[in-house]
Amino acid sequence: MSGRDHPVDADGEISPADISSPQQRSPSVVPEEAGANPPYVHKVEVPPKQNLFNEFMYTFKETFFHNDPLRHFKDQPKSKKLMLGIQSVFPVIEWGRKYNLKMLRGDLIAGLTIASLCIPQDIGYAKLASLDPKYGLYSSFVPPLVYACMGSSKDIAIGPVAVVSLLLGTLLRAEIDPSTNPNEYLRLAFTSTFFAGVTQAALGFFRLGFLIDFLSHAAIVGFMGGAAITITLQQLKGFLGINKFTKKTDIIAVLRSVFSSAHHGWNWQTILISASFLIFLLVSKFIGKKNKKLFWIPAIAPLISVIISTFLVYITRADKKGVQIVKHLDKGLNPSSLRLIYFSGEYLLKGCRIGVVSGMVALTEAVAIGRTFAAMKDYQIDGNKEMVALGAMNVIGSMTSCYVSTGSFSRSAVNFMAGCQTAVSNIIMSIVVLLTLLFLTPLFKYTPNAILAAIIINAVIPLIDVNAAVLIFKIDKLDFVACMGAFFGVIFVSVEIGLLIAVAISFAKILLQVTRPRTAILGKIPGTSVYRNINQYPEATRVPGVLTIRVDSAIYFSNSNYVRERIQRWLTDEEEMMTTTSLVRIQCLIIEMSPVTDIDTSGIHALEDLYKSLRKRDIQLVLANPGPAVIHKLHVSHFADMLGYDKIYLTVAQAVDSCSPKLSDEV
Amino acid sequence: MSGRDHPVDADGEISPADISSPQQRSPSVVPEEAGANPPYVHKVEVPPKQNLFNEFMYTFKETFFHNDPLRHFKDQPKSKKLMLGIQSVFPVIEWGRKYNLKMLRGDLIAGLTIASLCIPQDIGYAKLASLDPKYGLYSSFVPPLVYACMGSSKDIAIGPVAVVSLLLGTLLRAEIDPSTNPNEYLRLAFTSTFFAGVTQAALGFFRLGFLIDFLSHAAIVGFMGGAAITITLQQLKGFLGINKFTKKTDIIAVLRSVFSSAHHGWNWQTILISASFLIFLLVSKFIGKKNKKLFWIPAIAPLISVIISTFLVYITRADKKGVQIVKHLDKGLNPSSLRLIYFSGEYLLKGCRIGVVSGMVALTEAVAIGRTFAAMKDYQIDGNKEMVALGAMNVIGSMTSCYVSTGSFSRSAVNFMAGCQTAVSNIIMSIVVLLTLLFLTPLFKYTPNAILAAIIINAVIPLIDVNAAVLIFKIDKLDFVACMGAFFGVIFVSVEIGLLIAVAISFAKILLQVTRPRTAILGKIPGTSVYRNINQYPEATRVPGVLTIRVDSAIYFSNSNYVRERIQRWLTDEEEMMTTTSLVRIQCLIIEMSPVTDIDTSGIHALEDLYKSLRKRDIQLVLANPGPAVIHKLHVSHFADMLGYDKIYLTVAQAVDSCSPKLSDEV
Repeated sequence: MSGRDHPVDADGEISPADISSPQQRSPSVVPEEAGANPPYVHKVEVPPKQNLFNEFMYTFKETFFHNDPLRHFKDQPKSKKLMLGIQSVFPVIEWGRKYNLKMLRGDLIAGLTIASLCIPQDIGYAKLASLDPKYGLYSSFVPPLVYACMGSSKDIAIGPVAVVSLLLGTLLRAEIDPSTNPNEYLRLAFTSTFFAGVTQAALGFFRLGFLIDFLSHAAIVGFMGGAAITITLQQLKGFLGINKFTKKTDIIAVLRSVFSSAHHGWNWQTILISASFLIFLLVSKFIGKKNKKLFWIPAIAPLISVIISTFLVYITRADKKGVQIVKHLDKGLNPSSLRLIYFSGEYLLKGCRIGVVSGMVALTEAVAIGRTFAAMKDYQIDGNKEMVALGAMNVIGSMTSCYVSTGSFSRSAVNFMAGCQTAVSNIIMSIVVLLTLLFLTPLFKYTPNAILAAIIINAVIPLIDVNAAVLIFKIDKLDFVACMGAFFGVIFVSVEIGLLIAVAISFAKILLQVTRPRTAILGKIPGTSVYRNINQYPEATRVPGVLTIRVDSAIYFSNSNYVRERIQRWLTDEEEMMTTTSLVRIQCLIIEMSPVTDIDTSGIHALEDLYKSLRKRDIQLVLANPGPAVIHKLHVSHFADMLGYDKIYLTVAQAVDSCSPKLSDEV
Repeated sequence: MSGRDHPVDADGEISPADISSPQQRSPSVVPEEAGANPPYVHKVEVPPKQNLFNEFMYTFKETFFHNDPLRHFKDQPKSKKLMLGIQSVFPVIEWGRKYNLKMLRGDLIAGLTIASLCIPQDIGYAKLASLDPKYGLYSSFVPPLVYACMGSSKDIAIGPVAVVSLLLGTLLRAEIDPSTNPNEYLRLAFTSTFFAGVTQAALGFFRLGFLIDFLSHAAIVGFMGGAAITITLQQLKGFLGINKFTKKTDIIAVLRSVFSSAHHGWNWQTILISASFLIFLLVSKFIGKKNKKLFWIPAIAPLISVIISTFLVYITRADKKGVQIVKHLDKGLNPSSLRLIYFSGEYLLKGCRIGVVSGMVALTEAVAIGRTFAAMKDYQIDGNKEMVALGAMNVIGSMTSCYVSTGSFSRSAVNFMAGCQTAVSNIIMSIVVLLTLLFLTPLFKYTPNAILAAIIINAVIPLIDVNAAVLIFKIDKLDFVACMGAFFGVIFVSVEIGLLIAVAISFAKILLQVTRPRTAILGKIPGTSVYRNINQYPEATRVPGVLTIRVDSAIYFSNSNYVRERIQRWLTDEEEMMTTTSLVRIQCLIIEMSPVTDIDTSGIHALEDLYKSLRKRDIQLVLANPGPAVIHKLHVSHFADMLGYDKIYLTVAQAVDSCSPKLSDEV
């Protein structure tokens, strides 16, 4: 494009008459002053006017139903619709019909593997939540069955998890002391579980699942890492055989508690058991990592450790020498706990608050797992439907003596590697737990607490994801601050504070993003008609007398003043440089609006102010490539009339060409 | 560009070897398999690595010092720097030296005009805040003087304003009843004023001025309109001469109070005075609007009304017939009120809270005025410095018996039209108020309250900006919801609730914006190599087998899942259409990333998941024009290696060309 013969009106000035008579400059009219054979200039079109209702429905749909969950219901007879409706609540009906023996083989192996992993973990995690070990096993029996009927992930392994157990325990202990009021404590735990389930189901049902996206990946990495360290610190009690231990969770209180009991509180027999089995677990994990086919070694190592250590304690009667053991694990299935839930009184509100917090955290974990494995196997899961399934599972769980369950990172990974095909692996696991509860619980009497501590430490270590933190540091420094804020908040203060810091920094990042969008000066890439950021492409050349600025964000009330002032500052900088280098005066300011996805009234006011201020300085304002929403709003607000439709171009190249002839006359 | 001879590797497939050896495909290497004479393809460059400190300083500067306030301090000797520092706090030193007689003439006329307007308004506004009329006059004496020395706006007129007076009065009355505890009430008012000033100065000093940008224009329009109606309703007491009046401000309580007293509580003499003078004021305003040169008629009309009505009441002794009069206005200047401020006790916190809220609202009004007139006359004001000036003015005001002052919309407009040149017009006004306080206050004894009500109603009517609301409705429906939410919140509940609704909806809008960005399918505009949204340009044509999607926002944790799922939905929609129309299978998905200004770890994970899922379906992922921040992060996260640098193009046209040869072989 040569640009010299490009159509432009005689002097580029806008008289008041132009402003008041927009119809003279309708978008489709090419000014008559143009020379012969003008190059084809495509006009920037104002999109067809949207019906208000349609526009609202579109926004509503994109906000709440963006994955189009009702797609399959279209054009179906009524009976079919009902069937599809039931299917969408219970996906088991759909995949159950296609289930075959080959799938069962995969699920059976996976189910047995995760069962062997979950039983010792469950006992330990229940202790993290200051609950009797049996409640951990209960929570691995009912919730997986419910999830298998309602959930849509094929790979997730359901049950109690470390971080949620820790969080729930911390929040509950802040209200009731479990050692003095074990009954109230248990009731509040079920109440919280009930409300956790209600929260999850409600978020899913009202399609507010996107709210959990506000906890950023970076914040979760930091929070998980901090929680893992806190859990490890808590396990020092069992690991070292300490009797008197602090109830606080922050690192300073715990370490003080550990070292003050170093001389007489530690039990060497306990340390011998826990240390040797922790080494065994770590070695087995290392083997599993080196050879992916041996994944089953780290998966069954915990159960083997439990069996061996229990046997050792039983024959040596080490429990008489200070080695703490599980002592008692009730036989029998989950009793009903519906009557234990507080539906009134002061604990109702407290249970509700604890439930909302722990339910959200549990949801974050489960949805992240579901998404990860769905992406690996390339199937879709509907986050909102998943939340309804998880919520229903916890509501039913709260009535059958379970506490908050969710998807476990470690067990889901094992489930995946063991070749699970469907949620049937959860059912297999559930059956194994059922058999354990019915027949095997007495065998756990001599299981040393130390082995549970070793298993938990081994399980949470992978949550400290240093590589992810390093990557976050490389990619986004502010994300890293959120990550570290959550991390240090958890280990130095408490899990709640860490969570709060994570959410606060995540929000601050969003606000910063919308308040201070980036702007860039563009130059022409040699040999093309493409204009790009001159910082990114140092070889891009500037056109004398023309300043091209790209605004990299929607222009909203939160940034409109900044954008205007920033553009003016670019101009001032430029003009100062001009006077020192005595180059051509800036006569044309082009705003590349491709990234400006939307504009609001404040944004249009900012553009108007900019336009007025530029007119005073005899600088022309030209817009390049405003998007549909933007051009529509420029049109209805009459700013486009004020500016002139012939000052709006489809590309920067055309906009620059429109400025150049005028310049060439003057220079 | 024909596109057929464009360089692309043989089959477009990515083997694991490609992924693990990125150096083989470094960005600058053009694949060798290309045919003869390939068209020039410019590589997408990874910007030079930024030093961590520089990057931090850049972000920090853009966030807090984006207008480069220290620009003038660069390369100056120390003594000069000190001088510039003093000047930046007291701009009067700078402009005072250039002050001349011609300027004085403009300022004198403007100052006298706004003085005549402010005196009756001040008396009325003080009553709105349930304060003695003299405090209104006090607040038009000291604060304008302080502002004239420290402020940078040339056109703003300082003093008490209607909305802030109403808000302050409402908040104060919620704590203390002014009729039973007038002394405590006054002390709390000064305390609130003090903290309003401290808040304003602190926001400016710590350069947090951008926080007030979070109150969107639409929310302000709604809030102001609601406040104007509430103020008008409050004036019905004085307007109709009602003795017993509700203390609530919502429309239902006020109208019930008005009509319940209709039979015996209204005073016809009062109504006669107020109605006739209101008509006089409205007519004078109409004249001023029709002929801009007669702006002084509406400006002095209030003072004339006061003089005539006072004289009328004095000679007819209408006050004996139930017409309420001012009765008493203390003579003399502002007494010191430093000792009256609560620096301890329960009212300290309450005053602080009220001060923060009213200080922020006052700031919003003043900054909006400052910006509007600065844009009209094309000078820059530094929002943060302005806040320090306003804060200092209110802190000093709180110690000299003034309540919260700020810039008045109506008086600033009159000031501007009367030809003010500098802040000297505020000094002139201040001197007139001084003289009034010293000598003329006894003359206000017989001024009827009815005339003050008429003046206030006349002054606040322009705040109900129906045109702005209509424009907001046209431009942005969600903005309109914020506007109406604030409006109805103020008139049906209270000013605080209205303000809260406005802020909440403004925030919700920001969150919606970052959670649900728009995506668009692109097509080629005929006769160009430009690709644009096919909804905006229906004539744009799609390339068969290629799906080009533009993502219109930074990809952050808050929207990364949505973006990924939305792209997959576009693809599913497309594939469904394909099967019905038996067109070419989609083999290439191009993401146009020009508007993607930034990406974080969650965003990169979403791209990775998308890439993996597309690979399973044998669809190639190609990126067009990632910006500097994005390409840098794709590079450090090794996603660019995984994808292949030869799958990243500078423009959509090049990306499409890279896909086309492969298609032509297959079709």
